[in-house]
Order: sequence, then structure tokens, then C-alpha cells
Amino acid sequence: MMKPQERIQLWTELLELQHRYVNVLDNNRLEEWPGFFVEDCRYEIIPKENFDAGFPVPIIYCRNAGMLRDRVLSLRNANIYEDHVYRHATSGLVITSVADGVVSTESSYIVVITSQAGESSVYQAGKYLDEVVQEDGAWRYRSKRVVYDTLRVPTLLATPI
Amino acid sequence: MMKPQERIQLWTELLELQHRYVNVLDNNRLEEWPGFFVEDCRYEIIPKENFDAGFPVPIIYCRNAGMLRDRVLSLRNANIYEDHVYRHATSGLVITSVADGVVSTESSYIVVITSQAGESSVYQAGKYLDEVVQEDGAWRYRSKRVVYDTLRVPTLLATPI
Amino acid sequence: MMKPQERIQLWTELLELQHRYVNVLDNNRLEEWPGFFVEDCRYEIIPKENFDAGFPVPIIYCRNAGMLRDRVLSLRNANIYEDHVYRHATSGLVITSVADGVVSTESSYIVVITSQAGESSVYQAGKYLDEVVQEDGAWRYRSKRVVYDTLRVPTLLATPI
Repeated sequence: MMKPQERIQLWTELLELQHRYVNVLDNNRLEEWPGFFVEDCRYEIIPKENFDAGFPVPIIYCRNAGMLRDRVLSLRNANIYEDHVYRHATSGLVITSVADGVVSTESSYIVVITSQAGESSVYQAGKYLDEVVQEDGAWRYRSKRVVYDTLRVPTLLATPI
Repeated sequence: MMKPQERIQLWTELLELQHRYVNVLDNNRLEEWPGFFVEDCRYEIIPKENFDAGFPVPIIYCRNAGMLRDRVLSLRNANIYEDHVYRHATSGLVITSVADGVVSTESSYIVVITSQAGESSVYQAGKYLDEVVQEDGAWRYRSKRVVYDTLRVPTLLATPI
Repeated sequence: MMKPQERIQLWTELLELQHRYVNVLDNNRLEEWPGFFVEDCRYEIIPKENFDAGFPVPIIYCRNAGMLRDRVLSLRNANIYEDHVYRHATSGLVITSVADGVVSTESSYIVVITSQAGESSVYQAGKYLDEVVQEDGAWRYRSKRVVYDTLRVPTLLATPI
């Protein structure tokens, strides 16, 4: 059990980590995205329907940082021109457990997309379930599971959330 | 008048409180919602039109934490299945006064709803006017007034904002 | 190069500044808006298309705080009645450089608008490119460039973003 001041301090550091994560995605600097994870990591995108039913089968999953880097390469090769812009809004960040150097958190996200035609709308909403660890003096994701509410299956070439 | 460092410290604690509050609502853990309030509390939802006209007549009001707990029971009995998901985005949190142990704040909110059919859209926007007090070493709401901009009257069975 | 704890402290202060900035705009207290800037400042609104093409020609620009005050006066004279409400959601705030007392930051924003008819929708998304300096013991914007993704040209009388 952490003291309140310790919890606030840790929470602030994880909030700042989330802002840096969002910054990379929203500004299309995908090459920096894998660097937010440790090498031995997990990244999954899971429909809420599956998750709530107890079968959290992901539609997209990466089992290590190499797979994240491959994914970025695929996206760059497939989409020569940037064709949309994401803007995240995150909230509801809470620390759900701290054990053996692993901090687990839950948070809400909303993504607004602006299409190439210039129309902005709500693209997706959902939550992040993260496990965060210290590596070389910085917080990195060991696991990030994106559980999306919206019933719209992201295509295989979708930009990371 | 607080020193800047004291203000930042207090503000960070209230920001974290708001994140925990949002987390409970966005993840449908309504049973924990009354615990964010002191027993002798006020919770109101007020249309902006009324508020701006100087007649802040709420369409929903609770005069103590017991009424909040009753409200959750009603919601659970009426809605057997969860039929929508909320995701809040909050911003613009400022401390407007500190007096006699009561901290008053103002903040903006946007709620995106995902319907059972899987469509995500902006459901509501507005502001929170909160009074926060310390109880048993934790911050709790003594008063939360939700002033909504959107001209859509939440039904009596709407989930708390 | 800042130490992690220094960066988190500075970042928290700039996050709080952004919340206060948003609070003024979202609650239509435009008269306080110029006070967030030093006198010798720059405020620009730039379409992303221009910015990305290397021609960051703004559609709205102010070259000093006097022009910001003039702008508020114009808005008040032209729009006698408030006819819409903004609610910002900001995220992805990162410090991109610290040099000679100037802190540069980048962040994402989403603005939801509620029209006089009471309809809420995504109005605009984009990013802020800010330069922040200390003045009289408080952080103020020396430069704020608003680069919007959405292909909808804000009219000359639009409320500041």
C-alpha cells in the first residue's frame, strides 16, 4: 500500500508517459512508437465484446518489440502518403496494482480522426490496460492491451492506437 | 493566497481524484461512485440554459450519499444489461477558491458514448463545478454540479456523469 | 538535459497552465485570454496543409498582446449574444526543448462545440506548438501556434482556440 504522496508522484510520472505516447502517435512519428515498450512486450487490440465475454482474443497482437517495428515498416510501405490524422484524448488513468516492480494501470481513450478530406469525427473509444516497468531509468510498457468499445474492426493496416 | 508550488501540488491531487472518478464511471463500476462523496453531499445535473439564466434548477439532484446509493440500485434494477459505454475526456481543471478547508474547482468535460450497436459519438459536453474536502486523509466531493451544454435532457435512468 | 524529476515538475506546471488556458476559453471569459501571453507575443492559427508543406502561413495571426485584446473587443462587439460553447480536450503534451529560458512544447487538442440549437459535435482537432517563458513568477505563452487538421476555415470572428 503506497502513501498518498507516493501514489500521486508515481501517477504523475505515468500520466506524463501516456502524454509522450500519445504525442508520437498523433504526430505520425511511428518509428518512435516501439521505443515505448521493452523488448519482451505484448501489444494487443481487443474488441470489448470479446473481452467482456472472457475471451480476450485480440484482432491485432505483437509478442515483442521486433513485431512492433515490423508493423511500423509495413505501415510505411503500404501507406506512402499520410492519409489521416489521429488526436487522442485520454482520461481516467488509475493505478490498479503495484507488484514486483510492475505497475498496472487502466485508462480511457477517445480518438478523433481527421480524414484526408478534412472531416473530423469520433473514430474510436475504449480503454488501455497497461503494465509498466522501469528500464534504464525510464518507464516503458511491458504490456498494453487496447480494448475498444466501438464496433468497427480496425483493418490490418490501421495505425497503432 | 497559495504559493505556486502549493497550488501545483493541490491541483495535481485534484486532477488525480478526477481521473479516479472518471475511471469508475467509464468502466461501469457504479457501486463505487457514491464513495467519492462525503455523506452530507450534493450532486446535481443542471441544463446550462437554466444555470446561465440564474435559475440553476437541476433536473437530477441528490441531497446526500444515500440518495446516490439509491440511484445506483435503481439503475442496476432497471438496466439488467449494460447497454452503452461512456468515455469521458476532462480538461480545463482550475481551482477557483480555497476557504475553510473547502476547495472549489471548475473543469470541462466531454462524454463520448458507444451504443449497444457499436456506434461512438459525442453524447454530451459541459462543465463540473465541484467542492472538494478532505475526509479520512482522502479528497472527496462535498458538492458536484454538472452543468451540461448539450440540449438533450438525460433521462431519469441515465448513468451518472 | 533535465533530470527526470525536474522534467516531471516542469511538465506538471505546463499542464496546469494549459488547463487554466482551456478553462478561460471554454467558459467564455475571453477578456482573460490575452493575460496568458507576454506583451511581445505571437498567436497564429495555421491549416495543417500549409504547415506540412513548409509554408506555415497563418489564417489568423496576432503579433503582440495588444492585437489579442483588440481581437476580443471585436468578438464582443460583433457577437452580442454567446452563440456557441467550446469544450477542449487536450493530450499528448510534451516538452520538445528547453533553451535560454524558453520551453517549447507540443500537444494535441480536440474541440467539441455545442451550437445554440444544443447540438454537440467535434468542431476541430489539431495541435498546439507553444513557447512558454517565466514572467513575474508565472508561465506565459511567448508563442502559440495552433495547427488545425480539420479542413474547415475558421471565420475571422471565430473564438480563439
